[in-house]
Amino acid sequence: MAYKNLDLEKTTQLCRKVFASYGFSEADCERITDILLTADLFGIESHGIQRLIRYYNELSWGLVDAHAEWEIVKETPVSAMIDAHSMMGQVAAYHGMAMAIEKAKRNGVGLVAMRGSNHYGIAGYYSKMACDNDLIGLCMTNTSAIMVPTFGKRPMIGTNPIALAMPADPTPFLYDAATTVVARGKFEVYDKKGLPVPLGWAIDEEGVDCTDPARVIRNLNEENDGGIMPLGGPGEQHAGYKGYGLGMIVEICTSILAMGETSDLIVTKGDNHSHISHFFAAFDYGMFGDKAKIKAYFSDYLEKIRQSPKAKGQSRIYIHGEKELENCAARRQSGIPVNEKTFAEIQFVCRERGIDYRPYIGETF
Amino acid sequence: MAYKNLDLEKTTQLCRKVFASYGFSEADCERITDILLTADLFGIESHGIQRLIRYYNELSWGLVDAHAEWEIVKETPVSAMIDAHSMMGQVAAYHGMAMAIEKAKRNGVGLVAMRGSNHYGIAGYYSKMACDNDLIGLCMTNTSAIMVPTFGKRPMIGTNPIALAMPADPTPFLYDAATTVVARGKFEVYDKKGLPVPLGWAIDEEGVDCTDPARVIRNLNEENDGGIMPLGGPGEQHAGYKGYGLGMIVEICTSILAMGETSDLIVTKGDNHSHISHFFAAFDYGMFGDKAKIKAYFSDYLEKIRQSPKAKGQSRIYIHGEKELENCAARRQSGIPVNEKTFAEIQFVCRERGIDYRPYIGETF
Repeated sequence: MAYKNLDLEKTTQLCRKVFASYGFSEADCERITDILLTADLFGIESHGIQRLIRYYNELSWGLVDAHAEWEIVKETPVSAMIDAHSMMGQVAAYHGMAMAIEKAKRNGVGLVAMRGSNHYGIAGYYSKMACDNDLIGLCMTNTSAIMVPTFGKRPMIGTNPIALAMPADPTPFLYDAATTVVARGKFEVYDKKGLPVPLGWAIDEEGVDCTDPARVIRNLNEENDGGIMPLGGPGEQHAGYKGYGLGMIVEICTSILAMGETSDLIVTKGDNHSHISHFFAAFDYGMFGDKAKIKAYFSDYLEKIRQSPKAKGQSRIYIHGEKELENCAARRQSGIPVNEKTFAEIQFVCRERGIDYRPYIGETF
Repeated sequence: MAYKNLDLEKTTQLCRKVFASYGFSEADCERITDILLTADLFGIESHGIQRLIRYYNELSWGLVDAHAEWEIVKETPVSAMIDAHSMMGQVAAYHGMAMAIEKAKRNGVGLVAMRGSNHYGIAGYYSKMACDNDLIGLCMTNTSAIMVPTFGKRPMIGTNPIALAMPADPTPFLYDAATTVVARGKFEVYDKKGLPVPLGWAIDEEGVDCTDPARVIRNLNEENDGGIMPLGGPGEQHAGYKGYGLGMIVEICTSILAMGETSDLIVTKGDNHSHISHFFAAFDYGMFGDKAKIKAYFSDYLEKIRQSPKAKGQSRIYIHGEKELENCAARRQSGIPVNEKTFAEIQFVCRERGIDYRPYIGETF
C-alpha cells in the first residue's frame, strides 16, 4: 500500500480541531493529539493516526464519553483508585499518570489503579511522562482478550502491555511491549502480504498451532476459540507460561486492583462501555541514593551493553527506546507517513465533524 | 540417576545444625533451612538441598560472611536501600522482605533495594512472605551474567527472575520465573541425557544458534562469549527483545537502584564477594478497595481461566503456583528426593562441619 507523509505541524492542528469538536478542553485536545501522533513519530503506526477512525467510532457510539468526569473512589498519600466513567482513554490516562507523578514527588511513590477507561494509545507515552520528570515510570493496561493461557484455547487475557521508563543518558530506557508474543497488528500485516505467520505465534479454534493469519484474525473477530500465544509461545518448551504469567500480573495490577472488567469481559464495540483498566506508577529513585550517580551508573551499563560483541551478522545492539527516539527525530523532519486508507479515513472523520481538512492535508492522496 | 527420599523433619533438623555450626542465630538457621527445603518441596530441586555444597563453599571461601551485619544506607517511610555487606543471601533477603512488609502495613507500600548480598535461593519464597501477610509481594534479583542481549553474543544480564505473589482462594497466585527462556540447570539436564536442547535456547561463542548443551555450559563456565537467550529467543521473530527488556527492568530495580555490581560484573567464586543485588516490594492492595472483595474477584477470574476450554490434547490449565503447592503437599508426606551425588555432598558437608549425620539421613544411599 502506498504511503505519503503528512506535515507534522499541520496534522497536529487538524487533530486538535477534531477533538475540540467534541468539547474537550484546549489542553486535553493538545494531549490527545500528542499521544496519538507520538505513536506515529515513534514508528508505532498501529497506535497512531490510523486509529483516529476508531476513536471517532467510539465517541459516536457513546462508548467514549467526551463529557465524563472521573471519580476518585479511594485515595492515600501514595495511591489512588479511580473510576474514569468512560472518559476518553488518553485524557483519563494522562491525568492518572500526572497524579502518580505528583504523589511520587511528594512521597516517593505514586500508584494509580483505574477502571472504566478506554483505549489509551501507547502505554509507553505515560511511563515516559514520569521519566521526563526524572522518575521511574510504569504503566500497564488490560485490553479485550486475545491471549490464550498455556494449555488453553480460549482467549482469556489481553495483549496486556507493560511499559517501564528509566532516565539515562544520552537517551532514556523506554520499554513498552505486549505480554503476547506479538500484537494483533502483525497478523494483519502478514495477511496483507499473503504470508504465513511463524509457527508459535497462534493457535486455531481447536487449540492447534496455526500459521494462517486470516484464520487467527477471523477467530478473534468472531469470538471463536483460538488466539495469540503469550510471550514464549505455546506449551512449555519455550516457556510460554512465563508470558502467560506476565499477562496475569498486568491483569492483577489493572482490572483486579480496580475491580474493573477482566480482559475476557471487555467489549470495545457498541455503546456498552468498554471498562478497560489501567495502572500508573511513578517512583522517585532518589529514595535509594543520589539520583545523578544512579543515572550515570545506569548510563554506563547501557553503554557497556551497546559496545558488547555482536552476534554473527549483526552490527548493533539496541537499548529499548532507541529505535523509537531515532524514528521520532527523523519523522519530525520528514512528517508522518499514512497510507491511502488512513488518509481517506481522516477526511471522512473531518467531514463528519464539519472540519475543512484541505488547508491541513489537502484533497488528494 | 537414582533418587531416594529424605525424611522432611530429620533433614530440617540436620540443615539447621549445619547452619548453626557457622554461628547463625537459631531463628536464622530456621529461616535458611526453610528457604532451602521449600525449593525441594516445591519441586524446584535446582535451588534446593543440592545447593548445600554451594553454600558450604561460599561460606568456606568467605564469599558469604556468616557474621556480617547489614547497613541501612538510606531510608524513607516507604523505602530503604541496604548494603548487606556479604551476608548470607537468605538471611539478608528474609529480613529485607520483612522490612518491606512492615512498611507496606504502615504506609501501603514498602520497597527495599539491596546490594552486597549473595545467592538467596528461590525468589518466590520472599514474594510469598508478603502474600502470607495478605499483601502483594514482588521480588527480583540479579545474578552472574548468563543472558545475551538481542543481537549480542556476550552474556551481559543475569537470569534475573521476577517473582510476584497475590492472595487468592483456594491457593495464591505465585509467579516466579527467570527472564531468560530457561535457566542454566535445563542445559545440565539435557547434557546428562545426551540430548540436544531446542533451537532458540542458546547461542555459541560466535553468536550462532546452538543446540549442544555441553558447549553452552562450557562457554558459560569459561566466560567465553555465547550464552542463554532471553525469554522470546534469539533475534526479533519471537520477540526476544521483550525478555531482554524484562531482564533489564530487573537489573534496574536491583543493581542500578542499589548501585551494586551489574550482572556482567558478578563473580560467585572465590573470596571476592559476589555483590548480588535484590529488590523486595510489598503492596497493601487495600489501598485500592475492599481486600476481601478484590481477593474474591481475583479468585473468580482464576477459576474462569481454569475452567476455560483446553487446547487439543490438554486436560488442565494451571494457575501459577498450583504445581508447586501440589508438589509441596505431596512431598510433605513422601519426603525430599535427593540423588546419590547430593546425598554424598550432604554427608561431606556434615563431616567437614563436625556433625554426625547418621541419626538424620543414615550412612548409605
